[in-house]
Amino acid sequence: MAQQYEKVALIGLGLIASSMFWAMKRAGTVGEVSGYARSAETRATAREIGLCDTVCDSAIEAVKDADLVVLCVPVGVMGAVAEEIGPHLKPGATVSDVGSVKKAVIDSVGPHIPEGVHFVPAHPLAGTEQSGPTAGFAELFDNRWVLIVPSSDDTDDAAVIRLQAFWEGLGAFVERMDAEHHDLVLAVTSHTPHLIAYTMVGVADDLRRVTDSEVIKYSAAGFRDFTRIAASDPTMWRDVFLTNKEATLEILGRFTEELFALQRAIRKGDGDHLHAYFTRTRAIRRGIIEAGQDTAAPDFGRTGSKR
Amino acid sequence: MAQQYEKVALIGLGLIASSMFWAMKRAGTVGEVSGYARSAETRATAREIGLCDTVCDSAIEAVKDADLVVLCVPVGVMGAVAEEIGPHLKPGATVSDVGSVKKAVIDSVGPHIPEGVHFVPAHPLAGTEQSGPTAGFAELFDNRWVLIVPSSDDTDDAAVIRLQAFWEGLGAFVERMDAEHHDLVLAVTSHTPHLIAYTMVGVADDLRRVTDSEVIKYSAAGFRDFTRIAASDPTMWRDVFLTNKEATLEILGRFTEELFALQRAIRKGDGDHLHAYFTRTRAIRRGIIEAGQDTAAPDFGRTGSKR
Repeated sequence: MAQQYEKVALIGLGLIASSMFWAMKRAGTVGEVSGYARSAETRATAREIGLCDTVCDSAIEAVKDADLVVLCVPVGVMGAVAEEIGPHLKPGATVSDVGSVKKAVIDSVGPHIPEGVHFVPAHPLAGTEQSGPTAGFAELFDNRWVLIVPSSDDTDDAAVIRLQAFWEGLGAFVERMDAEHHDLVLAVTSHTPHLIAYTMVGVADDLRRVTDSEVIKYSAAGFRDFTRIAASDPTMWRDVFLTNKEATLEILGRFTEELFALQRAIRKGDGDHLHAYFTRTRAIRRGIIEAGQDTAAPDFGRTGSKR
Repeated sequence: MAQQYEKVALIGLGLIASSMFWAMKRAGTVGEVSGYARSAETRATAREIGLCDTVCDSAIEAVKDADLVVLCVPVGVMGAVAEEIGPHLKPGATVSDVGSVKKAVIDSVGPHIPEGVHFVPAHPLAGTEQSGPTAGFAELFDNRWVLIVPSSDDTDDAAVIRLQAFWEGLGAFVERMDAEHHDLVLAVTSHTPHLIAYTMVGVADDLRRVTDSEVIKYSAAGFRDFTRIAASDPTMWRDVFLTNKEATLEILGRFTEELFALQRAIRKGDGDHLHAYFTRTRAIRRGIIEAGQDTAAPDFGRTGSKR
């Protein structure tokens, strides 16, 4: 495949950045990849495992001459990083990111992008519960969606198309979406489910009458799926909730409303209501499997659950 | 292995019963297995796939001469089944079940068990989101826990020990627990998580501003784990909530209390509270993996997420 960017800079070297690096190497679509992480320990690990062609000791050094700069840091610090690198960006370069919220990123990063540099925010909907520079793998984005969220109506179309081709080269499907809708969709498919999972695991951990060892031993009855989600990176998720406050609170409101209705049906012994509700939710699962977004194998095909 | 029971009768032929049958065949620890399901279609499928040595057209016929009768029907109909088969049970036989709640089963089944027959309720903590006679597989109980919940203090110890050995032969670990504690533990590790997952999927399905096709396409961001749980059998789960009302409502109350505290932290922008909460929940996940109750592979080892 032809080279899409001569030099790509990854700022932040966690799960997403490291997966991007291995996927770029697999695709062979970029010339050189530089990387930077704030923590010296992360930089040392990156050098050790060959993550990035060059690991730099400053963000400014990493973005030098880069045609594409991708911010892979928690949403809460993106503005500060953008402020630091802004004056050192190559004219004509594209700055993108991988943040889970988009309005807040546009607001905090946008003002620091100089004239002549394209700012094209994006969000790969892919991840695992693991984090850090060693967590990445080349296949993370295969058949997953990347949402490109242009920061304004006059974003350069060529820059958007180039970034789209880049992500397709990493195995992803790409779609464009406006920032507000993105943040609402993600509040439904990701942010609220994560908050709920964190809450349920916290409740289980807190309950004196049921011990932690009981919770652990008997987790296979459903709870362990929640613990996977609730093992995700705390800093990243703190920032998601602080920066996608409105949409998350809206969906949480809808959630508690529905939960109270089901709770009432349980209290009143209204089996018909429960049965109808539980039947309806099966269709969505079928849709996800048919769309290739999850495995049809029972129990996610966990070891031992093969038919 | 020596034969543990000469004849076992399975009443109800869904995921659990069919898995028990294949696991019994793998273990070679029982003589003959008879089965019965209320639906003629299920019985026909069972005969077609060789599920059970004999598929009977009535429960009474199936339990004839059985040393162990296992009720594998939804909790809400166990009492009626027990009433029907009670007079036809072999003296000295054991009646057990696989229901997800235990107090309600003891109350509804117990009165129909005649003198001289042992009633030893049990609950294998294993399952997938799939249901029906074709959903079973021999490995379902491997390394999973089965809780034996004796129905009264004067339950025959030999009958309990025999049932324990039977489940161990199917690959499970066994522990004894009293009914009230069982129902509380399961409300935490299973019943409340299922209700929450059903609710979240229902909310996503209901929301007009986010389409079902968006929910499906972008589900990999966390939501799809919820849809797996919310694809479980509606009848079984209706009965669970109707019969474990008190414990489920108690845990739901704790859950909403915690959720409101986190919601308030989001509204107030209290990042420290969120970060501390999200850090604490990671430890439980580690415990589950160390206890062999889940895979350590990222994203449950779903296809494509290998490192």
